[in-house]
Amino acid sequence: MFKPEAHGLPPDFQLTKFSTLRGCGCKIPQDTLNKYLLGTEILTANTAAEKNAEHDDDYIGTGMDCAVIPLKKHPQLRLVQTVDFFYPLVNDPYTMGKIALANVVSDVYAVGVTDLDKLDIILSAPTEISEEERNIIMPLIAEGFRDAAQNAKVNPYIKNSVINPWCMIGGIASAVVKREEVIMPNNAKAGDHLVLTKPLGTQLATNAYLWMCDKTEKYEELLKYYSEKDIVVSFQMAVKSMTYLNRNAALLMHKYQAHAATDVTGFGLLGHAQNLAEFQRDNLRFVIEKLPIITNILGFAEKLNYTNAKLRSGKSVETSGGLLIAMPPQASAEYCKEFNAMTNGEQNAWIVGHVAECAVKEAVLGDNVELLEVILPVDC
Amino acid sequence: MFKPEAHGLPPDFQLTKFSTLRGCGCKIPQDTLNKYLLGTEILTANTAAEKNAEHDDDYIGTGMDCAVIPLKKHPQLRLVQTVDFFYPLVNDPYTMGKIALANVVSDVYAVGVTDLDKLDIILSAPTEISEEERNIIMPLIAEGFRDAAQNAKVNPYIKNSVINPWCMIGGIASAVVKREEVIMPNNAKAGDHLVLTKPLGTQLATNAYLWMCDKTEKYEELLKYYSEKDIVVSFQMAVKSMTYLNRNAALLMHKYQAHAATDVTGFGLLGHAQNLAEFQRDNLRFVIEKLPIITNILGFAEKLNYTNAKLRSGKSVETSGGLLIAMPPQASAEYCKEFNAMTNGEQNAWIVGHVAECAVKEAVLGDNVELLEVILPVDC
Repeated sequence: MFKPEAHGLPPDFQLTKFSTLRGCGCKIPQDTLNKYLLGTEILTANTAAEKNAEHDDDYIGTGMDCAVIPLKKHPQLRLVQTVDFFYPLVNDPYTMGKIALANVVSDVYAVGVTDLDKLDIILSAPTEISEEERNIIMPLIAEGFRDAAQNAKVNPYIKNSVINPWCMIGGIASAVVKREEVIMPNNAKAGDHLVLTKPLGTQLATNAYLWMCDKTEKYEELLKYYSEKDIVVSFQMAVKSMTYLNRNAALLMHKYQAHAATDVTGFGLLGHAQNLAEFQRDNLRFVIEKLPIITNILGFAEKLNYTNAKLRSGKSVETSGGLLIAMPPQASAEYCKEFNAMTNGEQNAWIVGHVAECAVKEAVLGDNVELLEVILPVDC
Repeated sequence: MFKPEAHGLPPDFQLTKFSTLRGCGCKIPQDTLNKYLLGTEILTANTAAEKNAEHDDDYIGTGMDCAVIPLKKHPQLRLVQTVDFFYPLVNDPYTMGKIALANVVSDVYAVGVTDLDKLDIILSAPTEISEEERNIIMPLIAEGFRDAAQNAKVNPYIKNSVINPWCMIGGIASAVVKREEVIMPNNAKAGDHLVLTKPLGTQLATNAYLWMCDKTEKYEELLKYYSEKDIVVSFQMAVKSMTYLNRNAALLMHKYQAHAATDVTGFGLLGHAQNLAEFQRDNLRFVIEKLPIITNILGFAEKLNYTNAKLRSGKSVETSGGLLIAMPPQASAEYCKEFNAMTNGEQNAWIVGHVAECAVKEAVLGDNVELLEVILPVDC
């Protein structure tokens, strides 16, 4: 539990107040971004390059989690790189730093790369808070980022930091690897199973906790059906999940010969499944049949009639979500078993769907989607 | 001349209104940044690594323009990378895109690397402007960035774009090169000459133009001594300079066996000279003896008593400034001559100082600093 006063901050200090958008909800949707770039030839140039290069497993430009670029002078090597930044969605600066790190490196893990060469932090200091507060918060964020980076076995370089009305945090992760070390996300096959390595529902879990801090109407409504402890427990599970690195998930992708993966963030499970489907060589349908959701969150959504439809259709916004992986059907159960064992039961992976033949490239919900309530072990 | 209405924007539209800090004036000073990181062990860890690695020409972490990192698995290769972003300082979105590109790639040029593998644009869309306006501005910025990138012979990948109250633009430039292709900025020698490849005064030149747009008191004061045309001419020279790529300056560094270089931006000529001095192997004094300043700007500063002292002491904030290069004294005149010829007289390089033996590492102004008024050819 974050205690602002323990750090010399006012007891009512809330990091999330310095931006009106939270977490991965801040991104301009890819469609809008494409619209900005239409007519500038940037989009068409990239798209053409992608269309040419996509099928020889050499190149990822925009659209997927990270870029994979053949080096001009070293064609057997790939620069794998991602940049990601967003706004605070929890009030504890240290935890925020850990989530930001997990979120940015996840893009690189999604192509099976687990060894980074360079990691930068991007921090912006809100203009509205006092210099004294800033001097407390910024080191806490940096410390969380740093501690999480050590788990990812890479030291961050701290370079850029700008003054900005909103608090912003993110990073850049870079690796140079051999071509064969990258699992290009375009190789899914009909019959593959889809595995997901973190539960859903992080956005509502963090929002409910912020409502509790502010004693809002939504919080009062929730209190008719749930206890404060329910809200705290779900929040702690979300934090546990968001700060967990997708590194083990990526390491096992190699062992179980995964065909393609993506990480689940702002566009939700179904949105990212759709992106992944569109990036495949083959025309395939990605079918989602199970939605593992953090405990209580489905109930919160139903009682408040808030993001209920989105949650149940796999479209809820996630921050630092799990990997969604297409892999041979004979590998999926063993993958999940070994993943769960590696985490000592602290995290879970589930088979959440399958890949089928199709005339087009699409992702859909199955006819009888199972809603699975997930309980992660937390201290409370 | 930027005409907002020609793009479907209101005639009084000003891109610079969507942030209160402008250009490279937005950076948190390195000292403050270090303060944030003290106690988190990030600073101490990096400093220790730098101290160990600095003198074997292998490693640049924080503090200099860009990072140069030996690749873990390919130790003969270096990842050269910079990230930079700032706020608009001109109202023309297309020009702003060009300046942003020139500014970000300049960090890589400063270590003599001219061939980039990857370039990303970072764009943030102001929340205050209408969607319609945003749909006009964002493609213009991207187009300017793209056009300038083509001159740098690299295609940008457009990935990240967030909603933010302020307009923010920048990029990430990455290259993987052999160790011997990097001119590590730590090899200056006593007796070296210092060469500068762009004039100073960009901040006041752009501010004066914005004051003219707004008909402010400062503008009315300037009109007592100068014409509107004087303000426009100086502004156009600043734009010409800020959009010019430091690529030729970097290419010639190899030919003339430069010993060390940095690019001049937010900390001003003397501030960056100080950074460069501190990064040297040897204890050296960098002495600045000449300040080439865009025409009229010294006069503006004197009449307004605004940044006058800063300008005359080499401390004025610059955006997308030139390279400051230490090179053998017998090479400097020939370097400037060839640089001026390569640009067909459109740009200039000057010998602005020298490097001397010293007990400590420092940068100072010489006793009789020459203030040189620079005129670049512009259409007006």
